Amino acid sequence: MEELAMTKQTNPVRVGIIGLGRLGSRHARHLTEKIQGVDVVAACALDKDQLQWAHDDLGIEKTFLDYKEMIDQSNLDAVVIVAPTPFHPEMTTYAMNAGLHVFCEKPLGLDLDEVQRMADTIHQHPKQIFQSGFMRRYDKSYQYAKKIVDEGKIGKIIYMRGYGIDPISGMESFKKFASEADSGGIFVDMNIHDVDLIRWFTHQEPVEAYGLTSNIAAPDLADIGEFETGVAQLKMDGGVIATLIGGRHAAHGNQVELEVMGSNGWLRVGEHPDLNRVTVFSENGVSRPSLQSFGARFDEAFLDEVQDFISNIAKGKQPEVTVEDGIRALKIAKACQESANTGKLVNIPKG
Amino acid sequence: MEELAMTKQTNPVRVGIIGLGRLGSRHARHLTEKIQGVDVVAACALDKDQLQWAHDDLGIEKTFLDYKEMIDQSNLDAVVIVAPTPFHPEMTTYAMNAGLHVFCEKPLGLDLDEVQRMADTIHQHPKQIFQSGFMRRYDKSYQYAKKIVDEGKIGKIIYMRGYGIDPISGMESFKKFASEADSGGIFVDMNIHDVDLIRWFTHQEPVEAYGLTSNIAAPDLADIGEFETGVAQLKMDGGVIATLIGGRHAAHGNQVELEVMGSNGWLRVGEHPDLNRVTVFSENGVSRPSLQSFGARFDEAFLDEVQDFISNIAKGKQPEVTVEDGIRALKIAKACQESANTGKLVNIPKG
Amino acid sequence: MEELAMTKQTNPVRVGIIGLGRLGSRHARHLTEKIQGVDVVAACALDKDQLQWAHDDLGIEKTFLDYKEMIDQSNLDAVVIVAPTPFHPEMTTYAMNAGLHVFCEKPLGLDLDEVQRMADTIHQHPKQIFQSGFMRRYDKSYQYAKKIVDEGKIGKIIYMRGYGIDPISGMESFKKFASEADSGGIFVDMNIHDVDLIRWFTHQEPVEAYGLTSNIAAPDLADIGEFETGVAQLKMDGGVIATLIGGRHAAHGNQVELEVMGSNGWLRVGEHPDLNRVTVFSENGVSRPSLQSFGARFDEAFLDEVQDFISNIAKGKQPEVTVEDGIRALKIAKACQESANTGKLVNIPKG
Amino acid sequence: MEELAMTKQTNPVRVGIIGLGRLGSRHARHLTEKIQGVDVVAACALDKDQLQWAHDDLGIEKTFLDYKEMIDQSNLDAVVIVAPTPFHPEMTTYAMNAGLHVFCEKPLGLDLDEVQRMADTIHQHPKQIFQSGFMRRYDKSYQYAKKIVDEGKIGKIIYMRGYGIDPISGMESFKKFASEADSGGIFVDMNIHDVDLIRWFTHQEPVEAYGLTSNIAAPDLADIGEFETGVAQLKMDGGVIATLIGGRHAAHGNQVELEVMGSNGWLRVGEHPDLNRVTVFSENGVSRPSLQSFGARFDEAFLDEVQDFISNIAKGKQPEVTVEDGIRALKIAKACQESANTGKLVNIPKG
Repeated sequence: MEELAMTKQTNPVRVGIIGLGRLGSRHARHLTEKIQGVDVVAACALDKDQLQWAHDDLGIEKTFLDYKEMIDQSNLDAVVIVAPTPFHPEMTTYAMNAGLHVFCEKPLGLDLDEVQRMADTIHQHPKQIFQSGFMRRYDKSYQYAKKIVDEGKIGKIIYMRGYGIDPISGMESFKKFASEADSGGIFVDMNIHDVDLIRWFTHQEPVEAYGLTSNIAAPDLADIGEFETGVAQLKMDGGVIATLIGGRHAAHGNQVELEVMGSNGWLRVGEHPDLNRVTVFSENGVSRPSLQSFGARFDEAFLDEVQDFISNIAKGKQPEVTVEDGIRALKIAKACQESANTGKLVNIPKG
Repeated sequence: MEELAMTKQTNPVRVGIIGLGRLGSRHARHLTEKIQGVDVVAACALDKDQLQWAHDDLGIEKTFLDYKEMIDQSNLDAVVIVAPTPFHPEMTTYAMNAGLHVFCEKPLGLDLDEVQRMADTIHQHPKQIFQSGFMRRYDKSYQYAKKIVDEGKIGKIIYMRGYGIDPISGMESFKKFASEADSGGIFVDMNIHDVDLIRWFTHQEPVEAYGLTSNIAAPDLADIGEFETGVAQLKMDGGVIATLIGGRHAAHGNQVELEVMGSNGWLRVGEHPDLNRVTVFSENGVSRPSLQSFGARFDEAFLDEVQDFISNIAKGKQPEVTVEDGIRALKIAKACQESANTGKLVNIPKG
Repeated sequence: MEELAMTKQTNPVRVGIIGLGRLGSRHARHLTEKIQGVDVVAACALDKDQLQWAHDDLGIEKTFLDYKEMIDQSNLDAVVIVAPTPFHPEMTTYAMNAGLHVFCEKPLGLDLDEVQRMADTIHQHPKQIFQSGFMRRYDKSYQYAKKIVDEGKIGKIIYMRGYGIDPISGMESFKKFASEADSGGIFVDMNIHDVDLIRWFTHQEPVEAYGLTSNIAAPDLADIGEFETGVAQLKMDGGVIATLIGGRHAAHGNQVELEVMGSNGWLRVGEHPDLNRVTVFSENGVSRPSLQSFGARFDEAFLDEVQDFISNIAKGKQPEVTVEDGIRALKIAKACQESANTGKLVNIPKG
Repeated sequence: MEELAMTKQTNPVRVGIIGLGRLGSRHARHLTEKIQGVDVVAACALDKDQLQWAHDDLGIEKTFLDYKEMIDQSNLDAVVIVAPTPFHPEMTTYAMNAGLHVFCEKPLGLDLDEVQRMADTIHQHPKQIFQSGFMRRYDKSYQYAKKIVDEGKIGKIIYMRGYGIDPISGMESFKKFASEADSGGIFVDMNIHDVDLIRWFTHQEPVEAYGLTSNIAAPDLADIGEFETGVAQLKMDGGVIATLIGGRHAAHGNQVELEVMGSNGWLRVGEHPDLNRVTVFSENGVSRPSLQSFGARFDEAFLDEVQDFISNIAKGKQPEVTVEDGIRALKIAKACQESANTGKLVNIPKG
């Protein structure tokens, strides 16, 4: 039996991770504790405490404050980029040019020209895997819904509705974040996954957007150029209609809900953000406690997408989601924002 | 067209109502405002304010403190008895002997011998309608469930579970009531409808009962000889097993729940006591407010059962539920109590 | 006590009903069987079978094929108009000019000029009650939600979403109806109540609409100039954003859902159109059967609104909802349709 | 930083696994792919295909048909026993005497004397970890419920109800299993976790049981001495009352439900066995698809309990659940069965 076992001993993928914040630390933990076929040999962050934690708690040997240094010195096969969005293009470009496989969190960037140049670089390296973080495609509930739709069980899609609404409990941390960095605006920040899902489910492209925004729930967001709520209605080229809602002020928890209305049935994914399997009968009536964090909601999907990245490297297989999907989602989210900013309908060019 | 219309002009049934408490006033209002083919010509109660209300608000012409006087003087066709349970047998007997149709609220009484004699009287007047208040059989949800079961859609019944649990909010009023009158005990008071439903759904008879009671939630009920919770397991003659739970201490509301476990599917009626069609998303998670009162829960069934009584009189048709059904339910509920009192399994004779 | 009782004997309101179709027959039954203080002395319809039924089953003495004849000959106090929408203005005008109180089903009409003239007539008769059929304001669930909102429990309203979607089972009957009459279009036909609710909850006015329609689920509706689905996004003058969805193709049942998203909590009314209180555990998982008809959903509200009309007559009190509310709702629904027809954003003048 | 990293390099625990069936293969996969601090160096099973899979897919080097040989030859620190229940005592005893830490799946065994002797052996080796598989204590929903109860938020516990009901889809596999091995009977097989939970939540001991069984849903189970349904009512020494239901015939899925009724609120864990976060609106009404397998339901708990075992070894810390807890649960489940077999109330001695 020894030979067979040998085939298991393919060399693990040598990975460096860039960014150890809320999501970065989650990826780092998954990579070191749960993902097969990988060695996390280096981590990069601007915060020394985070690096200390990566070293001490996760056992990552080498730590860096400069991502280029990490790439140059660590003999990596791949990088996992979880840095703030504006840095995604330059980091991806540097890593691709260094011959590495790249996993880059969504969105690809905020500036479309930059992102387009990054895509050009990616295309110059067709043998290196580039994968972006549309992790909802890995979530079992969306996959179940997609299967039902693809099997024709709800007929033809008529309408879709995507909610990406953060809990009130996250407001202070958002204010801090958005004061220091560019969130991309409410639609880019909160609905880019919904845009991806709508394209994934319908195989149609949005061609027109009507966006509206407000700060009724959080007037002081205006001071930092942000909106608390954004609502956009999209016209798709095949006749489907869609609504996006992004928000930052849900009292109950993290409402990530997708509705797919078909000609012969509907689906709702995440209608209520149940925290667990407990139902509470109390003076408030009958209730289910709610999830507060997208991390808890999508922990398994975050794990599975990075495991898939590692497997794709091993198999030399590009992922289903391409950089073009990422660019398209970004353009659509930005068109919603443009409509809200200008008060006009905005056409979304197909290209 | 005039002749046809004439046939609508059959004389309305002249009814007197006995008892104007919580449930009696509900019946009185239904009878005067919503039920067809009836004239409420007299009301009897011990409370003068209640009589004043019946006269002024409902327009009931004659009011009485003594039910016999009412029956003797009012040229009635029928009485609706909603007095305290211990009076049911004597009132029914007096009314039947006076030639009247009788609607009597459940339970039929508390003393089985008395109830048996009342049944004898009823049988001596086969042309007079006698109907007892098993109103759940008129509730649309139970009827829907019964239909599914009767159509064989859930296979053969294996197990049933009936909860009759009052909200905490009703505790003080219960203490007052039980200090003044005999409630019949937790099983008679809270589960006699469940017993009826179990017999109705299964066509089987309980043959053995194991009852347990407690006062954990309301220790001072012991002072008035009452229990807060009762749980009983019943063995039915056809193999079905059943659990009854009676209680007086639900924090959320009025839990009247029935489970029917079949060999090919289950049903739950009233799994959550939804107050209305509103879902609330708040810091408590996602919740549905709950009903607090059985009156609100069963208002339509209370209306429909009395309307059916009036229709039965017009058609000269005895109701499906007989006095024997009432006696049987009473015996079974009492057997559960006896088991709890003695700590032993109790056989329930068929007769 | 006799004097007090006397005051109950005010003369009943003499009512004639116009229209005995699906909704008209419901109102007729309510008026004859359940509503207090009213005598239905005449009915008008074009269908002789319906008139026969009204006479025979409901005991309505006089029946007419011509509504003017009915009004002229029946010594009425009031009319209840449940005829097809295009006739509402002329019937209301005729009745008001004849000195009658008028209850008129929604919408007020389809032609805005006609409706405006009808409103002028109404204003010329300020002592006669005019009430329109916005029955959802009488529904206990909406009232509960409204109370929560008015008490400030969910903070300030940010967003509202109203679904008015008929079941597939109603499609054939709609096709027949829409082939013979003008439905007013998907938004007028299916969302006018939602428009009223949004105005009622927010105290704001829509100022801009973006509507889209489709026939993906029912392509042959195009032949009769109808759309199966309509989606509109509304900008309100106080910053609230709203989405309306009208449809005719829900596989599960009648989806009348309202979402109210507040800065400190959300409400959904009718999230699932539960038929009753039964939960079914079967090979389909755990399910709740759904309502198929708006009549069943709103039976109690339909009853209560007409009871309120009768009470308003007795009290000489105009209802909260005015003819202007009806006109405003109609204008807004029509603006959504105009946007869908023209492909442009449509401004909604305040006047 | 190097020194700190060193401390991570404690030697992994060398584990051998016994049993690679449905649950055993799950544990084996968890141990090789997801659990930290462990090396699975050997596997034992009677089925050569299973051993081949363990070797080829999981990379477990040494495989054995005989568990003693495995223990003798593999220089193990610990064994994980997932063999059929009757073998648990002898395997545990052999491993403990060989100086190994032992994780043993529930139940501890079927013969109480054997299990008692096994406990004696365990006690002779107080420095070796012995942990049994009460994995529900590791499930996040039960832990959440336990926390709420322990914080007093639902007052004092009055009543508990535990359902362990397998889906119809598992019936054939159960028949095969029960024809070849002793399941222990319906209560031992399906409710032993519920018994553990009831003791864990209440800190009370059952003192009396009334059990009933039936084969209505699966008459041919009688041929192999099994029952399809078992229902037992338990009296606890502190006044709590409990109901256990075990079954093998749920049409919808795997119903593992626990109710905790408190004097000031209730909890239900697993009221509906939701498969995922998808709600389906179809001709069946509004439904949630159901889990079919306890493995899927408790995958994370199975992982966490074995991870905890490995951590306990590293820390030299005995687990909260002791062998006595396992013995007690077994005695109680057997008492329910004895009551069903004899038709009598059965006392459960405390010892």
